[in-house]
Amino acid sequence: MKLWDKGYDIDGFTEKFTVGKDRELDVMLAKADVLGNMAHLKMLYSIGLVNDSELTDLERALKEIGQEIDRGEFRIEEGIEDIHSQIEYLLTQKCGEAGKKIHTGRSRNDQVLTDIKLFTRSALIDVLVQVREFFEILMAKAEENKEVLLPGYTHLQIAMPSSFGMWFSAYAESLADDLLFLKAAYDMVNTNPLGSGAGYGSSVPLNRTLTTTLLGFDDLAYNSVYAQMQRGKMEKNVLFALSAVATTLGKMAADICLFSCGNFGFIKLPDKFTTGSSIMPHKKNPDIFELIRAKCNRLQSLPSQMALLCANLNSGYFRDMQLTKEIFFPAFEELNDCLCMAGTVLKEMQLNKNILEDKRYNYLFTVEDVNDMVSAGMPFREAYRLVGLKVQAGEYDSNTQRPLHHTHEGSIGNLCLEQIRTKFARHLWDYSSVLKAEKTLMQS
Amino acid sequence: MKLWDKGYDIDGFTEKFTVGKDRELDVMLAKADVLGNMAHLKMLYSIGLVNDSELTDLERALKEIGQEIDRGEFRIEEGIEDIHSQIEYLLTQKCGEAGKKIHTGRSRNDQVLTDIKLFTRSALIDVLVQVREFFEILMAKAEENKEVLLPGYTHLQIAMPSSFGMWFSAYAESLADDLLFLKAAYDMVNTNPLGSGAGYGSSVPLNRTLTTTLLGFDDLAYNSVYAQMQRGKMEKNVLFALSAVATTLGKMAADICLFSCGNFGFIKLPDKFTTGSSIMPHKKNPDIFELIRAKCNRLQSLPSQMALLCANLNSGYFRDMQLTKEIFFPAFEELNDCLCMAGTVLKEMQLNKNILEDKRYNYLFTVEDVNDMVSAGMPFREAYRLVGLKVQAGEYDSNTQRPLHHTHEGSIGNLCLEQIRTKFARHLWDYSSVLKAEKTLMQS
Amino acid sequence: MKLWDKGYDIDGFTEKFTVGKDRELDVMLAKADVLGNMAHLKMLYSIGLVNDSELTDLERALKEIGQEIDRGEFRIEEGIEDIHSQIEYLLTQKCGEAGKKIHTGRSRNDQVLTDIKLFTRSALIDVLVQVREFFEILMAKAEENKEVLLPGYTHLQIAMPSSFGMWFSAYAESLADDLLFLKAAYDMVNTNPLGSGAGYGSSVPLNRTLTTTLLGFDDLAYNSVYAQMQRGKMEKNVLFALSAVATTLGKMAADICLFSCGNFGFIKLPDKFTTGSSIMPHKKNPDIFELIRAKCNRLQSLPSQMALLCANLNSGYFRDMQLTKEIFFPAFEELNDCLCMAGTVLKEMQLNKNILEDKRYNYLFTVEDVNDMVSAGMPFREAYRLVGLKVQAGEYDSNTQRPLHHTHEGSIGNLCLEQIRTKFARHLWDYSSVLKAEKTLMQS
Amino acid sequence: MKLWDKGYDIDGFTEKFTVGKDRELDVMLAKADVLGNMAHLKMLYSIGLVNDSELTDLERALKEIGQEIDRGEFRIEEGIEDIHSQIEYLLTQKCGEAGKKIHTGRSRNDQVLTDIKLFTRSALIDVLVQVREFFEILMAKAEENKEVLLPGYTHLQIAMPSSFGMWFSAYAESLADDLLFLKAAYDMVNTNPLGSGAGYGSSVPLNRTLTTTLLGFDDLAYNSVYAQMQRGKMEKNVLFALSAVATTLGKMAADICLFSCGNFGFIKLPDKFTTGSSIMPHKKNPDIFELIRAKCNRLQSLPSQMALLCANLNSGYFRDMQLTKEIFFPAFEELNDCLCMAGTVLKEMQLNKNILEDKRYNYLFTVEDVNDMVSAGMPFREAYRLVGLKVQAGEYDSNTQRPLHHTHEGSIGNLCLEQIRTKFARHLWDYSSVLKAEKTLMQS
Repeated sequence: MKLWDKGYDIDGFTEKFTVGKDRELDVMLAKADVLGNMAHLKMLYSIGLVNDSELTDLERALKEIGQEIDRGEFRIEEGIEDIHSQIEYLLTQKCGEAGKKIHTGRSRNDQVLTDIKLFTRSALIDVLVQVREFFEILMAKAEENKEVLLPGYTHLQIAMPSSFGMWFSAYAESLADDLLFLKAAYDMVNTNPLGSGAGYGSSVPLNRTLTTTLLGFDDLAYNSVYAQMQRGKMEKNVLFALSAVATTLGKMAADICLFSCGNFGFIKLPDKFTTGSSIMPHKKNPDIFELIRAKCNRLQSLPSQMALLCANLNSGYFRDMQLTKEIFFPAFEELNDCLCMAGTVLKEMQLNKNILEDKRYNYLFTVEDVNDMVSAGMPFREAYRLVGLKVQAGEYDSNTQRPLHHTHEGSIGNLCLEQIRTKFARHLWDYSSVLKAEKTLMQS
Repeated sequence: MKLWDKGYDIDGFTEKFTVGKDRELDVMLAKADVLGNMAHLKMLYSIGLVNDSELTDLERALKEIGQEIDRGEFRIEEGIEDIHSQIEYLLTQKCGEAGKKIHTGRSRNDQVLTDIKLFTRSALIDVLVQVREFFEILMAKAEENKEVLLPGYTHLQIAMPSSFGMWFSAYAESLADDLLFLKAAYDMVNTNPLGSGAGYGSSVPLNRTLTTTLLGFDDLAYNSVYAQMQRGKMEKNVLFALSAVATTLGKMAADICLFSCGNFGFIKLPDKFTTGSSIMPHKKNPDIFELIRAKCNRLQSLPSQMALLCANLNSGYFRDMQLTKEIFFPAFEELNDCLCMAGTVLKEMQLNKNILEDKRYNYLFTVEDVNDMVSAGMPFREAYRLVGLKVQAGEYDSNTQRPLHHTHEGSIGNLCLEQIRTKFARHLWDYSSVLKAEKTLMQS
Repeated sequence: MKLWDKGYDIDGFTEKFTVGKDRELDVMLAKADVLGNMAHLKMLYSIGLVNDSELTDLERALKEIGQEIDRGEFRIEEGIEDIHSQIEYLLTQKCGEAGKKIHTGRSRNDQVLTDIKLFTRSALIDVLVQVREFFEILMAKAEENKEVLLPGYTHLQIAMPSSFGMWFSAYAESLADDLLFLKAAYDMVNTNPLGSGAGYGSSVPLNRTLTTTLLGFDDLAYNSVYAQMQRGKMEKNVLFALSAVATTLGKMAADICLFSCGNFGFIKLPDKFTTGSSIMPHKKNPDIFELIRAKCNRLQSLPSQMALLCANLNSGYFRDMQLTKEIFFPAFEELNDCLCMAGTVLKEMQLNKNILEDKRYNYLFTVEDVNDMVSAGMPFREAYRLVGLKVQAGEYDSNTQRPLHHTHEGSIGNLCLEQIRTKFARHLWDYSSVLKAEKTLMQS
Repeated sequence: MKLWDKGYDIDGFTEKFTVGKDRELDVMLAKADVLGNMAHLKMLYSIGLVNDSELTDLERALKEIGQEIDRGEFRIEEGIEDIHSQIEYLLTQKCGEAGKKIHTGRSRNDQVLTDIKLFTRSALIDVLVQVREFFEILMAKAEENKEVLLPGYTHLQIAMPSSFGMWFSAYAESLADDLLFLKAAYDMVNTNPLGSGAGYGSSVPLNRTLTTTLLGFDDLAYNSVYAQMQRGKMEKNVLFALSAVATTLGKMAADICLFSCGNFGFIKLPDKFTTGSSIMPHKKNPDIFELIRAKCNRLQSLPSQMALLCANLNSGYFRDMQLTKEIFFPAFEELNDCLCMAGTVLKEMQLNKNILEDKRYNYLFTVEDVNDMVSAGMPFREAYRLVGLKVQAGEYDSNTQRPLHHTHEGSIGNLCLEQIRTKFARHLWDYSSVLKAEKTLMQS
C-alpha cells in the first residue's frame, strides 16, 4: 500500500483499516448476540415497548437464527461489517419494522459488551472443563507412579529424592490454585452490563434486573460508566486467569523438554509425538512440548499487552477497545489446545523406572546419611562435615536401595492426593444455573 | 567497577553481587520469621525433637525478639547476610545449642517461603483496609454529588449527560471487582508451605497440619515440590491483584488530570496539592495525579516483569527467585501510598457545579431530543435525521435545564449506591481468625 | 476439542498443533526461499557438488517459480506443510533427483533463517520508504502552517505559545531518530546465516563468502552457533525498531484524538474519516486515530512478547522459535497500514487557525509579559510575582496579537526545517546494492 | 500510612510522595548538571546576558563544585529537593545574584533533560568499555579452547559436534551485533536539548549551536517540542540497547547453569564462586549465574515498563516522567556488574576437556557417518536409513576420535575469530571528541 499510488482506493482502505478482523472474529459472538437480543426483547415487552405480535415474531426469528448457529450454518454476509448488523439485518428481513425496534434503549456499546461477557462466561466454563480433565490425568499418573523415584533438583543440581508421583501431583495442585483466578475472572464476567448504553444509560425505563435474571447473570454491573469501563479491564483480568493456567502448563512442558534430554533420560515420548531431523538420523525432538511452552509464554504475555492498550485512557469508550478482540478471543482455544495436546501425550509418555540406579544420583542421599548419623547420636555439624569430606574426595557412596521414611504431609511417602483432590473440588465453581438460564431463555 | 583494576576485591564484589538488597529488604520479614520459628518450634516439641526446657527458653527468646521488632528496635547486624541468619544468631546467643535445633527438619527454602507468605498475607490485609477506606471516600463523594451533572464522553467526544455521582461511584464499583482478585491472591497465599523443605520434604516426621493451625493458615500447600513452585508464581499472582487496584486508581488519576485541564475545568485541585512552574506564573500542575498515574502504570508492569523472571525455568528452586523480592516487597507500600494520597486530595477537591451551563455541552441532549420526538410519535430514523441536520447546520440548541428522567438501575437518576455497597461487602473477606492465630501463637 | 471425545483424531490434531499457521505465513517467504535456493545452488556448483546440467535445470526451475510468485500465482499445496517443502517439491517435479541435491550442506534451520532474513531485509526497506513518505507529509504540513499558533501545554495545562509548524515537525524529527533503530536492525539482519546448518555448520566445504556476495549481504553471521542464536533475537530487535516508529505515530494519534475533542477543537477531521453513533446524531468520532493509537501500542508490546518467548532458553535451536513468525510477520503490514492511513488523513485534516482568539489561552503569554517587564528593567522575581498576582485575581489579560520574537534554533520563529531534513537524510541508508544483488541473482 | 490517622502529616506525606527518590538518584546527575550550567553560562555571556565579572565568578564557582564532585564530597543537603536546586543554591551562595542569572532562558525541563543526556552519554561509554572488556575475555577463551569439543544440541537433544571455541565466540559475535543498538541509542542521546525550554523554547535569543559545540554534542535536538518528547522515548531506547547486551549475557548464563548441572558436567565453577546448602553437604550451586540470568531478565523487562509509563500520553511534559529515573538510572550499574561478575568467573571456570569420551555422545557423529557413506557412493536417503536403523536398534557406534573436517567459514574447524574481531571493531564508536569537549569545557 503506497500513499502516492495512482488509483489508490482510499475508501476501501479506510473501511478495511477500521473493520479490521471483526468479521471473522465476530462469528464467535453469534450465539451470545442471539441470547442478548432475546433477553432485551423480553424486557422491552415487559415494559410495554414491544407488543404481543412483535414479541412472537421476534422470538421465532431469534430461535431460527439460534438454530442456524447451532447447525454451523450461520455466516456474516459480504458487505455486513459485524455480527450485530448481521443479526439485525436478519431480524428486519424476517420481521420488518419490528426488527428495528429491538435496538430501543440499547447502544452498540452495551450490546457488544454483553455479547463478549456471555461469550467469555461460556469460554471460561470450557476452560474449567478442560482443566478438570487435565487435572484428572495428572492425578491418575501421580497415583500410578507414586513409588517411582526421581532425582529432585535445586539450582539444577542434584538435591534429594523425589518421585514421579510427587512431580505429577505438584502440577495438579498448582492447577487447584489456578482455579482461584479463573473463578475471580468468572465472577467479574458474570455481571450484567446490558442497559448501560454507551456508558451513560438511557432515558428509556429499562428493567435491568429482569435481563440479569433472564441471562443467568449473578448480579448487575450497576453503574453505567463502570459497566463500560469493564471493556479492556475484563479482558485483561480473564487473560491473567488463563495465563495462570498457562504458567503451570508451561513449566511442566519445560520439565518434559529437560527430562527427555539424553543427559537426563527420565522420560521418553512416543515416536508419533516427536519430530525427526532431515539431516540427523538419531533425532527425536520434543517439538510438541516446546510449542506448548512457547504458546504458554505467549499467553502469559497477553495481560501486559492488554495493559499497554488501555494505559492512560480516560473513562468513556474508545475505539482502541476493538483491537482487544484480536488478542482476547483466540486465547481460549490456544490454551485449550495446549491442555488437550499435553494431556494426550502424557497418557502415553513412558517413564524411566530405574533412574536412581545410575551412580551419579547417589548424592541424593547425603541428607539421609547425615540424618542417619544424627539419629545414631552424632552432632549435625559433625555428620554434615564427614559426609561433605567424602563427597569432596570423590569417595561418597550410599545404599540407594534402602527404604525411605518420608512420612509427613506432602512428602514422597505421603502425597496427600486426597487432600489435593478436595482442594481442587473446593476451588471449582457451579455453572449449572447459567446453562439452565441460557437454555430456558431460548426455549421459553 | 573495572575487570582489570588492580586491587580489585573479587570476594567483596562477589558477596555484594549475591547478597544484593537482601539485608535492607529482609527487615520486612522480621515479624514473619519470628512467627514461623515459633510455630516450627512448638511442632518440633510436639514430635519430641525439642524438650521442655528448650521449648521454654526458645519461646521466651522468640517473644523477646518479637517485642524488639514491635518496638522498632530490630536490626540486621553488620556482617550478617539476611533476616534468618540474624534471628538464628540471636537465638543461639540467647539459648546456646538449643538455638541451632530449631532448624531441624527445615531448609532455608521453606523458611523463606513461609516468611514471605506470612508477610504477604499481612500486607494484603493492609491493602484491603486501605481499599475499603478509599471506597468509602468515593461513595461519600458520589452520594454528595449525585445531582451534579457532568458531560459524558465517548471517544473523547461529547456524548450524553453523566454526573459526578456516577463518576465517583463508577470507580467505587470498580474496586468491588478488584477485590475478587485480591481475594484469589490471598487464598493462594494463605496455605502453609512450612515443612516442604527444599522442595522435597524431609525424613523428619514433621506435623505440618499442626503448624498450619498454629500459623492460622487456611490449608496446606501439600505437595512439597508444588510448595516451592509457588515462589515466583505467588508473587506474580499477588502483583496482578495489586495491579488490578492500580488499574482502577490509575484510570481515575488520568480522568482527574484531564478534568483539571483548563479546556475542561470540571474540577479544581487545592493549591497545596498542585505544583507551580519556575518560569510560568499561572501554572498549577496536577503533579500528584500524574505521579499516581505513573506509579499505577509501573505497578501494572510488575506481573509481566515477574513472568519474564520465571519464564522457562524448570521446577526446583533457583536463585533467580531472590530477585523477586526487589520487585515484590516495595509494591505494597507503593499502592498504599497512592491510595492514601489520592484519598487525601479527593476529600478536598472542588467540583465545578455549573459545567453544563456552557453552550458547548448542549449536544449532550441530542439523544433526549430524539427520544422526545419519538415519544411524540415520530419514527426514530426521522427524528435522528432531523436533529442531525440541525447539528450539521450549527443550529442545534436544547433546553438543558429540563428535568432528566433516567430511572433504570445504574443510570444517573438511580445510581444503586446501596447495591454497590452490598457487592463490595460481599467481595471482602474475613481475616479475623488470622489475626487471632498470630496473636495466640506469640502469647501462648 | 475434548480429550475424551470418541473418534478423536489424535494424528490430525497433533499435525494441526505443530504446523500451526506456517502454511499461511510462509507464503510471505516464497520469494526469499527462491533467492536462498538460487544462491545455495550456484555455490554448490562452484565447489563441484552440482554439475553443469543440474545447474542449468535448477536455475531455470527456480526462475519459473520466481515468476509464478511475481505473478501472484504461487500457492502452498494442500498436504504440504511449509514453503520450503513446497519449493523442494516443485524442484523435484521439474528436475528429478537434481531437485533433492539442492539440500546438500544445508539444514532446515539455516534455510529458514536465511529466508526470514531476506524477507525482513526487504520488509525493512518497505518500512523505510513508508516512513520517508510520511516524513514528507509532516514536513510539508509544518512548512505550510509554521505561522499558525497553537497553545503549548505541559501537564495538560496551558503553558506557552506553540505552532502547528512546531507540532508537525516535532513528529518529523522524531522519525529521524527512529531511523537510527531501523538502521541498527537492518544492519543486524543483513548478515548471511546460510551455511550455519543446524547451528553447527557442516562437513561439506561450503563457500559462505560466495553466498554472502550473491545474496547482497553486507557480511557473514560467521559463527554457526551464533547464526542460529539470532532467531528470536533478530525478531525482537527488528520489532523494537518498528515499535520506535509506532511510538512516534501513536503519540501523534493521541494528540489528534485530544485536539479533535470538542473541548479543544484545534483540528477537524474530514467527515469521511470519522464515525457516527447509532443513537447520538451529533457524534463524529476519530475512530481511525484511536485504532492507530491502539495498533501502535500493540506494536510496542511485541518486543517484550518476544523476550518472554525466548527467556531462559539455552543456546541451540528450539521449536519455540516457530511461534515467533505469528508475532513477527504481521507487524510490518500493521505499521505500514498505520502510516499510510495516518498520512492519508493528515493531508486532508483541517486546522483551526484562530485558536488563540479564545481568551482562555491568554495565559500562554505570562512568560512573555514577565520577560517584557524584565527587559524593561524589573527584577525577574518581582515581575513573576506581579503577573502571578494578576492571574490569581482573575485579572490577567494580555495582548495576544503582538508579534512574538522567538528566534533561536528550534523555536516557533525558527523551526530549522532544513536541518531536520538533513538529519533525516543522514539517518537513511542506501539499499540499492541489495536490490541490485537480488535482481542479478535471479537474472544471471 | 492510614488516611484516618490522627496527627497525619499531610504536607510531609505529600512532599515525600512527590519528591520520591529524586534526592538519592540525582546525585548521579551532579557532574552533568555542572557541565550543562557551564555551557549555558558561556552561551549567555556570548549573547550579552552575563557580563565579564559574572562569567568569571560563576566559572570559578562551577569549577569548584566540579572538583568537589570529583573528590566524592558532593552532597544534596537536607531540605533541598534535587540536584538542580542544590547547585543553584551553591552558586547563589558563592556568587550572589549572578547565581540566579544562570537560569535565564532555561527551564527546569530542558535542564533536567540535558543533564540526563549527558549522564547517559557517559554511562553508555562505560557500558561500551565494559562490553569490550568482556568481549576480549570471550575471544581469548575461544582461541584457547578452539580444539576442545563440546556436544552441540538442538531441542536439547544431542545434535552435532561443537566446541568450546565455537561456544565462547558465539557470544562474542553476539556482542558485536548488540553494539549496533548501543550505537543507535548513543546517537539519539548525543543531541543537544538545551534551549528547548519547557518544550516551547524561549524568547531569549539563545545560541543553541554554541552550547552544542561546547558540550560536545553531535547535533541539536532542534524542534523544542520534539526535544521534550525525547523524555521517556530516550530512556526506552537506551534501555532496549542495554537489554540487547543483557539478552546475550543472560543466555550465556543459562548455558552455564545447564553445563554445570551434574547431568552435563561440561564445566566446573571454582568453589569460591558457588554456594552450598545448609542441609545438603554435596551441593555447589551456580547462584552467581542464576542471579546474572535473573538480572538480565529484569533488564529485558525495562523497555516495556517504560512503554507502559509513556503509553497514550500526549505531547508536552508530564510529571509521570519523573518516575523514569528510578527505572533508568540503576540499569547501567546492574548491567556493568553482571558483565564484571561474569567476566571474573569465566576467567577461572574449568572446562571438561574429555566430554566426548562418554559413549552417550556418539550420536553426534551420525551426520558424519552418513556423509562418509555418501562420499563413498551411497545415496543419501539410503545412508540416512541405515544409520537410523542402527540408532533405533541401540547398535549405533562411531569412531569419535577421527579427525573432523569442518572447513567452511564459521564451522568448528574455521572459527573466523579475526573476522569477528573486525566486525566488533567496526561497530564500536569513537567517543574521544566527547571526552575532549567535556574536559575543555571545564578547564577553559
